[in-house]
Amino acid sequence: MNWNLLKLICLIVLFNTSNMEAQTVIEFKPSDADMTMVVRKALENVKDSDIKLVFEKGTYKFLPDYAMDKYCFITNHGNGFKKIVFRFENFNAVEIEGNGSEFIFHGQVAPFQFENCKNISVKNLSIDWDIPFSFQGEVMAINEKEGWRDIKPSTEGFSWTLNNGKLNFPNIDDFHFFELGSTLSFDKNTKAVAHGAWDLNSNPRWVEKMPNGILRFHEPLKKYPAVGTILHSKGPHEQNRYAPAFQTINSSNANFNNVVVHHALGMGFLFERTSDINILNSGVYLKEGTDRVVSTIADATHFANCKGAILIENCRFENMLDDGTNVHGTYVEVDAILDEYTLRIALKHFEQMGFEFASVGDEIWYIENPSPKRAGENEVVKVKYINDKYSELTFKSKIPASLTKGDILENKTWNPEFTMRGNTIRNHRARNIIIKTPKKIVIEYNELSSMMSSILFRGETFFWYESGAVEDVLIRNNNFNYVAYSGSEHAVMYVTPRLNQSFDQTELFDKNIRFENNTIRTFDSRIIIADRVDGLKISGNTIIQDKTQGKALYPDAPIFDFINCNNVEVLNNTYQGDSENSILKDEKSSKTIKIKGNKGFKNLK
Amino acid sequence: MNWNLLKLICLIVLFNTSNMEAQTVIEFKPSDADMTMVVRKALENVKDSDIKLVFEKGTYKFLPDYAMDKYCFITNHGNGFKKIVFRFENFNAVEIEGNGSEFIFHGQVAPFQFENCKNISVKNLSIDWDIPFSFQGEVMAINEKEGWRDIKPSTEGFSWTLNNGKLNFPNIDDFHFFELGSTLSFDKNTKAVAHGAWDLNSNPRWVEKMPNGILRFHEPLKKYPAVGTILHSKGPHEQNRYAPAFQTINSSNANFNNVVVHHALGMGFLFERTSDINILNSGVYLKEGTDRVVSTIADATHFANCKGAILIENCRFENMLDDGTNVHGTYVEVDAILDEYTLRIALKHFEQMGFEFASVGDEIWYIENPSPKRAGENEVVKVKYINDKYSELTFKSKIPASLTKGDILENKTWNPEFTMRGNTIRNHRARNIIIKTPKKIVIEYNELSSMMSSILFRGETFFWYESGAVEDVLIRNNNFNYVAYSGSEHAVMYVTPRLNQSFDQTELFDKNIRFENNTIRTFDSRIIIADRVDGLKISGNTIIQDKTQGKALYPDAPIFDFINCNNVEVLNNTYQGDSENSILKDEKSSKTIKIKGNKGFKNLK
Repeated sequence: MNWNLLKLICLIVLFNTSNMEAQTVIEFKPSDADMTMVVRKALENVKDSDIKLVFEKGTYKFLPDYAMDKYCFITNHGNGFKKIVFRFENFNAVEIEGNGSEFIFHGQVAPFQFENCKNISVKNLSIDWDIPFSFQGEVMAINEKEGWRDIKPSTEGFSWTLNNGKLNFPNIDDFHFFELGSTLSFDKNTKAVAHGAWDLNSNPRWVEKMPNGILRFHEPLKKYPAVGTILHSKGPHEQNRYAPAFQTINSSNANFNNVVVHHALGMGFLFERTSDINILNSGVYLKEGTDRVVSTIADATHFANCKGAILIENCRFENMLDDGTNVHGTYVEVDAILDEYTLRIALKHFEQMGFEFASVGDEIWYIENPSPKRAGENEVVKVKYINDKYSELTFKSKIPASLTKGDILENKTWNPEFTMRGNTIRNHRARNIIIKTPKKIVIEYNELSSMMSSILFRGETFFWYESGAVEDVLIRNNNFNYVAYSGSEHAVMYVTPRLNQSFDQTELFDKNIRFENNTIRTFDSRIIIADRVDGLKISGNTIIQDKTQGKALYPDAPIFDFINCNNVEVLNNTYQGDSENSILKDEKSSKTIKIKGNKGFKNLK
Repeated sequence: MNWNLLKLICLIVLFNTSNMEAQTVIEFKPSDADMTMVVRKALENVKDSDIKLVFEKGTYKFLPDYAMDKYCFITNHGNGFKKIVFRFENFNAVEIEGNGSEFIFHGQVAPFQFENCKNISVKNLSIDWDIPFSFQGEVMAINEKEGWRDIKPSTEGFSWTLNNGKLNFPNIDDFHFFELGSTLSFDKNTKAVAHGAWDLNSNPRWVEKMPNGILRFHEPLKKYPAVGTILHSKGPHEQNRYAPAFQTINSSNANFNNVVVHHALGMGFLFERTSDINILNSGVYLKEGTDRVVSTIADATHFANCKGAILIENCRFENMLDDGTNVHGTYVEVDAILDEYTLRIALKHFEQMGFEFASVGDEIWYIENPSPKRAGENEVVKVKYINDKYSELTFKSKIPASLTKGDILENKTWNPEFTMRGNTIRNHRARNIIIKTPKKIVIEYNELSSMMSSILFRGETFFWYESGAVEDVLIRNNNFNYVAYSGSEHAVMYVTPRLNQSFDQTELFDKNIRFENNTIRTFDSRIIIADRVDGLKISGNTIIQDKTQGKALYPDAPIFDFINCNNVEVLNNTYQGDSENSILKDEKSSKTIKIKGNKGFKNLK
């Protein structure tokens, strides 16, 4: 590969010297060689603060061997010492023009990292892996009595070995998972998650190769996958989130247009402490004609403590193993009060370790047990890093005497406005959309289909520690089609804060949610569950029961379910279907609820 | 704990201000509190380049919670993001006076790291863990037909849980091993490795708790441990070497006196690129009266690319899960020749990743296939880090045209003189002593007992890539008592280079080894195996067969075994025993061998 490399580097140097602007432009031509070192050497020569990479249309291959390495904190992934192919740090502007090129990665690599860059533009490229980091196969037979299942492994590109009754995958380079881990079954024809499927954490006692090449997994299960489905495993949760396709951190003005992620060893697009983001005409989905059933190992898009305006428009997200999007902040816990101005705080979830909760100048909210209210504010004037879990924060004003160990802090400064318009999200695990930001949220004109709830609101001080309560949400003119088909119970829209036991479990949390003029066509009964919402307007929606989608899983559940709510309005909705159970509302919610002008519901009052 | 901390920090600050020397002295008093943050805050205030820590005699507890963290390369361990309690960097002098104190660590922590320190002195302290990172229990029964073993878990301090048929240990904080992994049986009474024991890599299909509290491990084995032995597991090899008790790197003049390591999550004392080291009156061994059978998880002492003089005197090393000492350099492989002066080199073993093979000014040797000879020399003038596996080295003189990809480099500058005198090494896994340095080696007046070979010479370009060939070795006046009692075949002294197949497998490698006036009392036949040695003198040794030590494992093996050797002398040795097979020598070795004045051997000629 050295000759290819030299050839390309020459080209680059020529180009640099002939380029008189403050922007360095680097052109790449397709090659059969490993391009990792080519890109790396090119970037090492850049002096300008503005850089443009132009890839002539074609296929480019990137191997991990000569990639740079660095210990990386990556929120909602596994932190670790990563191999990174494209790393951009401290640029004023980074532009990447793919001209429709295809980037094929191999092995454990983080494709793109942007850190402390002011303007980012990535256009017209797709990324994929030659060998996916997963194992899948068709369920040929199960035997509940003897506790085994027979699997016919999928062939395309998958890589695994069977050693002493243990299945190792992927079988490339030095890395493989030590167990099957997170496992889920998919419909063979639609490639959607199978109707009524359950998450399974799999670690077979042993695996046996049958004479016909089929693998027998000896593992007693509580719930067996259906024969004929495709069973997919991505390894144990401590190991299976290496890096997102695109990680953007402490940056601003990030723009992705016509960027498609077919596979990634984590999320598709991850943003941390970044302001103003557009993801347009892009996607996370399977390559046409593949027999793979999974695109990204985790969320298609994920936003942790971002601010400014986020827009996701005209995108397609399919076959991920987690949410279509998750927009949230981070709750931290008060570990110790060190003096009148200084706290030691603790990050709580193992995938948040090392996350920068706050920096100097950030405003934070106190949330004091037992009330989940944003009680007071203060400004951070000093941050001292203790380790990946603990930091010391010093504030401008005195800390309230009422604050105690175990209380919660939320970052007020880093919350975005969020708009999601004209997207299609379907066929994947978990939720289409999770939102936790107090700023303005608009979700409109989307085509949505989900395994769990389509839209989830869940401020969390229980396990994930993802903030926070919403205050201005408009969900309108969306088509929900085939929703909540997981084995576990969900709804089309589910509002359900989960606070640890020290908190009042009935006090109002989220507020001002409007669910208007949406069309819902689904096989089951539940449409909305709302807990602790102050101001929920459900109006002008059309709900059509469609039994052709699959058998009802929770047929007796109520269409609307309100708990501890205030000011709920259910107005002018229409229902076509045979549910006898239109509404369940507790005493508190009943006091202020308005129900008017609805059609087709039985006993909706 | 905050009050304790404040109290102690006050003490320290007072002391600092009252201290007018260039050396900062910090005193610590015993406390029930976690001392990690106390030590950390104290060290943060140090301005001087000389520091002395004085611990009033007592017990000190160190928890990982508030320890500093850092990504660390640790040779022959697992690299990773470590929690570090005592870290000393860039000091002219560091002195630690323990006054006989006991340091008890908890969880995954690296106790001591010294980096780029010129003078290091640690005295009069012992270290241990409250909960060992292992699982052990007595073998109560085995059933080879059904493929299970019954184990009665040891109780003292051990921590584990049984979840869904999987045994997790240790059961502390967030970390546990995902399988039993490296497993070995020990004699219940002597706590030595069991006679005839084999290494086992264990991953039971499932584990069942029997009504009587005994655990049944369902796992078909090729070799079952003996009923009545203590079976010990330390987890899988990718995970079970977190950090040594003491890591010293890029430093000089390191002195340890009366320092005892009862447990560590890796080696006891590890030195990398450090010059002039004394370990005196110290040890790695079990605490009196404990029912644990293992001290450190890996080697008692280990020296990678050190130089100057190393002395280990009057020490006791027992019950480790690897060698008593290993002194070696590092072979790297030529990955590419980039120009007439520059090579890209590759580190080869997964536990060498990130190791600094050479720095500017170092002289290296070329070793060109197929000859293992040190063929030529050159001086490094530039080092460019590519990643943890690859570096680019630029040399002062042109690289020989004969050098090709796959050839080997060895560092000439970083090799130590080594003396081991008056030590006791026994009851542990693997070898007492492994040595690979071309400088002067003296091993005398030691009491040695080993599971595998007592003394091993093995330059290695096959798996471990540990250099190099010895040139001046004197082994005299040692007592070898009960040696090579592993199930696999070994000897008292074993010289066996292991070079990859591209090398000539018969060419002379090690030279000038003298094995003189030693007394060997053992149960089996083999005493010396020597392959490819030029100049081996075995004289004045007394060999006494002692069948009371245990049953012979390889009774028909020859006492002396010479392969591809030159100038072997076997002079004036005496033998008491019934071996019929005194010597095996190939044609090449026979040409120059001298055998004279030996007594008591049958057919020694």
